Amino acid sequence: MRNIKITIEYDGTDYHGWQSQENAVSVQGVIEEALSKLTGENINIIGASRTDTGVHAYGQVANFFTESKIPAEKFFLAANCQLPSDISIVGSEEVSLDFHSRFCAKGKRYKYLIYNSRSPSALLRNRAYHVPVSLDFEKMRKAALYIPGKKDFSTFKATGSSVKSSVRTITGIELNKKENVIEMVITGDGFLYNMVRIIAGTLVDVGNGRINSDDLGSIIESLDRTKAGRTAPAHGLYLMEVFY
Amino acid sequence: MRNIKITIEYDGTDYHGWQSQENAVSVQGVIEEALSKLTGENINIIGASRTDTGVHAYGQVANFFTESKIPAEKFFLAANCQLPSDISIVGSEEVSLDFHSRFCAKGKRYKYLIYNSRSPSALLRNRAYHVPVSLDFEKMRKAALYIPGKKDFSTFKATGSSVKSSVRTITGIELNKKENVIEMVITGDGFLYNMVRIIAGTLVDVGNGRINSDDLGSIIESLDRTKAGRTAPAHGLYLMEVFY
Repeated sequence: MRNIKITIEYDGTDYHGWQSQENAVSVQGVIEEALSKLTGENINIIGASRTDTGVHAYGQVANFFTESKIPAEKFFLAANCQLPSDISIVGSEEVSLDFHSRFCAKGKRYKYLIYNSRSPSALLRNRAYHVPVSLDFEKMRKAALYIPGKKDFSTFKATGSSVKSSVRTITGIELNKKENVIEMVITGDGFLYNMVRIIAGTLVDVGNGRINSDDLGSIIESLDRTKAGRTAPAHGLYLMEVFY
Repeated sequence: MRNIKITIEYDGTDYHGWQSQENAVSVQGVIEEALSKLTGENINIIGASRTDTGVHAYGQVANFFTESKIPAEKFFLAANCQLPSDISIVGSEEVSLDFHSRFCAKGKRYKYLIYNSRSPSALLRNRAYHVPVSLDFEKMRKAALYIPGKKDFSTFKATGSSVKSSVRTITGIELNKKENVIEMVITGDGFLYNMVRIIAGTLVDVGNGRINSDDLGSIIESLDRTKAGRTAPAHGLYLMEVFY
């Protein structure tokens, strides 16, 4: 028995998220089908992050157990022949039997793209959140400075989600603007449900003037989801990397 | 009668190129339909560049004549409501009646993307040319230095294309690499049929060692298409800007 870790890039547009479910095509389901065909076994994969419908990934990580004799570092090349072109396994390696892609994750990095222009972008139509009103980028950048650190992030947690603790450590957040595209990159030891999308949406509401950039500290301290901004849509979000 | 100039972004993946044709969906055809619906007239648009099937654009330019009273600078917002999400008009303005988007063009800028990695990219699957063998980027960059200038570029002209003169002026070519993506940006007063794709393919053949980087000067001077490299595929090509 071997434990294989794979790194996966996907365009989430045409999938009902990562996780396998009845009557819907998921990224996990399609990869399991490809690996099962390849190995002749019934493969179940464990993903590091259960990305929502429409969310993309450059560096999703998953692992699975197999008796197959295919060399670990060849798995990704063999599997790609069985996969549709919107999912690509970009690397594979053998790991110790106790490696678990979700429980062993020490942190994650996400990217969120905002397309700020009066007209929508054809090439980024499923890849960035289109905001037609002009955003004040410097105010967004200023507000983002309140986010890093070890804090209770209940303000940025989707209502209805139940986790033991809402304390997470955000180790970095960077905002950059190039022409009409605003890119937010955020790194942390873990993220609450919808947390990155709520942070992106809150910064958009700072940019359009609905939220004062200097209020972000007290909004975070309030632990009150209703004080934060909108939940930005899934299709602007990218899982970039999982750290171990 | 007014002459309206529009700037267009599109994802060329699902279109049979720019130019209207029988029994095939073209970018031009879809825009003409949208503008005709908007104005109640039978609108014909003139495009600056007849991009091939699969080629994308950030800055295609076209013009059309109309009696419509819609303010020129509102045309793009109104038209986008009628257009599919993979075509977006990003600007519109009134120009003098003698403006012709193709004949008045003084130059164009194109971008070509190469994805250089053993596994394909899911997110760039229709947006970059996937080259799985490792390319020597520095050799590609060195070879590119032979390209700029006013020259007969018959070497980089698709066989069978008939134009009066094959002399063009390339004012700039830049190659950059970021992780697995090699980006070539090329600017010139005009381009022969398939010229950018043949240049990209030739540089790939320099990168993989089939063509010596120092031979590029004599290959251009030979005026012999067979001495150049492959024609890189259409889906890596972007029309970035048309100059007037």
